[in-house]
Amino acid sequence: MRFFCPPVILSEASVAGRKEGEGPLGDRFDLVEPDAYFGAKTWESGESAMLRRCLAHLLAKAELDARQLDYLLSGDLQNQCAGAAYAVRGVPAPYFGLYGACSKMAEAIGLASVLIDGGFAERCAAMTGSHFCTAERQYRFPLEYGGVRAPTAQWTVTGAGALLLCREGRGPRVTDFTAGIVADLGVKDMANMGAAMAPAAYQTLRAHFDAVRAPEDYDLILTGDLGHIGHAIVADLFERDGVHLGDRYDDCGRRVFDRERQDVHAGGSGAGCSAIVLAGDVLKRLRAGELRRVLLAATGALMSPVSAMQGESIPAICHAVTIEGEGVS
Amino acid sequence: MRFFCPPVILSEASVAGRKEGEGPLGDRFDLVEPDAYFGAKTWESGESAMLRRCLAHLLAKAELDARQLDYLLSGDLQNQCAGAAYAVRGVPAPYFGLYGACSKMAEAIGLASVLIDGGFAERCAAMTGSHFCTAERQYRFPLEYGGVRAPTAQWTVTGAGALLLCREGRGPRVTDFTAGIVADLGVKDMANMGAAMAPAAYQTLRAHFDAVRAPEDYDLILTGDLGHIGHAIVADLFERDGVHLGDRYDDCGRRVFDRERQDVHAGGSGAGCSAIVLAGDVLKRLRAGELRRVLLAATGALMSPVSAMQGESIPAICHAVTIEGEGVS
Repeated sequence: MRFFCPPVILSEASVAGRKEGEGPLGDRFDLVEPDAYFGAKTWESGESAMLRRCLAHLLAKAELDARQLDYLLSGDLQNQCAGAAYAVRGVPAPYFGLYGACSKMAEAIGLASVLIDGGFAERCAAMTGSHFCTAERQYRFPLEYGGVRAPTAQWTVTGAGALLLCREGRGPRVTDFTAGIVADLGVKDMANMGAAMAPAAYQTLRAHFDAVRAPEDYDLILTGDLGHIGHAIVADLFERDGVHLGDRYDDCGRRVFDRERQDVHAGGSGAGCSAIVLAGDVLKRLRAGELRRVLLAATGALMSPVSAMQGESIPAICHAVTIEGEGVS
Repeated sequence: MRFFCPPVILSEASVAGRKEGEGPLGDRFDLVEPDAYFGAKTWESGESAMLRRCLAHLLAKAELDARQLDYLLSGDLQNQCAGAAYAVRGVPAPYFGLYGACSKMAEAIGLASVLIDGGFAERCAAMTGSHFCTAERQYRFPLEYGGVRAPTAQWTVTGAGALLLCREGRGPRVTDFTAGIVADLGVKDMANMGAAMAPAAYQTLRAHFDAVRAPEDYDLILTGDLGHIGHAIVADLFERDGVHLGDRYDDCGRRVFDRERQDVHAGGSGAGCSAIVLAGDVLKRLRAGELRRVLLAATGALMSPVSAMQGESIPAICHAVTIEGEGVS
């Protein structure tokens, strides 16, 4: 989808956990919260508090009241997307719940842009996040169990990102949206999400490069949360096609943590991973003119712990949005 | 949202389980499958098989290949919406995963209409479903436990419904979409979903009647799956406003089962409930001219079993779409 009047990202907000705050992008986030409970009694309601804080910060930055939002699009990784549902309880804006696992940031930005460019809304907020502690006990083991992590495992980011998209104003713009098709090449290893999601990323990027714009037209091509392993697979798949992505291709899961210093194995993951890298760092660099055109290709693994235990392989999806700095073409 | 060029529902498909097939609408469904596994090894993959069969039937009726779909919007009640994700694996259409619990049929129809009326798509499929056996063990107890159900409990529908929405063609049209705001009046009883969701239904209907069209303008106003209790609450809330909804107001959860004969307590529920009542019965009656204008206000409870166990109340949402028969203003 090419947007006729590309929606403007008027402002963005990012909230990160302690470990993310200690990472290479630590000083880029709006808020860093050392308390994993975000002041709540449980990790799950802490995740909701984190999302609420992120939305409040977004609205405060834009000097807007939630009533001025035409639509709010969100979702998270908790079962039944409860993290987002409880976060938006009491927020007087029509709500669209989305589920695309960790691809949600791009799905939400894309659909918010559709609502605006299609003439249905003036202002939409797109928000998502994830929380290490809730994800770990839901998808893997109780944290108290202290299980040893596989070398291919990624570390779920504790963080939330939100964007305010508007029909008018100044700032970076969402120019197009490439929605993904579910891909599943048979990977069954729940501890190797990068490999499971890489085919979806390759498929969406391939379709985008063939139909919309070439890799050279981007300053930065950023997959969602493939981490070090998935990033290497995608780079390799393109090399086989004779396409050298080189340094302009990176992954949010590689950027959010310092692999040597932070013991995160294959990198960061989670819906919050692309959300905070985008809202905390990339958009600021687009605003500063350090980047001119970025392709965010957020990736999501669509299995459930039940489907994995039943022996199913892992379907994945990747949605991509192009974001251009002000004044670019 | 009012649609400038209301999308046409070119065809619809419905697949129901045995109990639904024995209910009052049994002979209205396209397919009734007596095997709760739908030929698969587990209930979860059976639910995916049911959704796949529903989509295949939809495409066969319309003589379309999945490649001709611009977008496919779906989601279900399984954790991580895995039922839908595995159903659409291998389907070569860009996929938007949604989560709105049992409000999903209206959310999917509404967003598909946005994509079409906004000029982003020619053809979209909107599909959802639910399965008694997967929902019961995920949300409540293992079926083998044989727990006694509360009188206020509803029976999750095993069924799937899918609609093909197009920019052009003949058939009923989606004329407007009222997206809901999350409502939570503090109900904590997981065995009384009707009461938990009734405030959301009231809120969305109230907003719709105030801003778009009066109740008298509808032949049928159909909430999603409030069942007998939630339906009575909504009717009562409107009576207090001096609005008598009367016989034109009913609920999908009241229509899908025979309360006396089928031992379903407070009625049907689940994302499949509004999906099969709409696709199996209401759309056929709109095509036949028996109904001229219908408001489908699908309702969803956004809690998770974890949030309920943590003592949280149940947030709910209701999205409403107006569907008019061909030739109605």
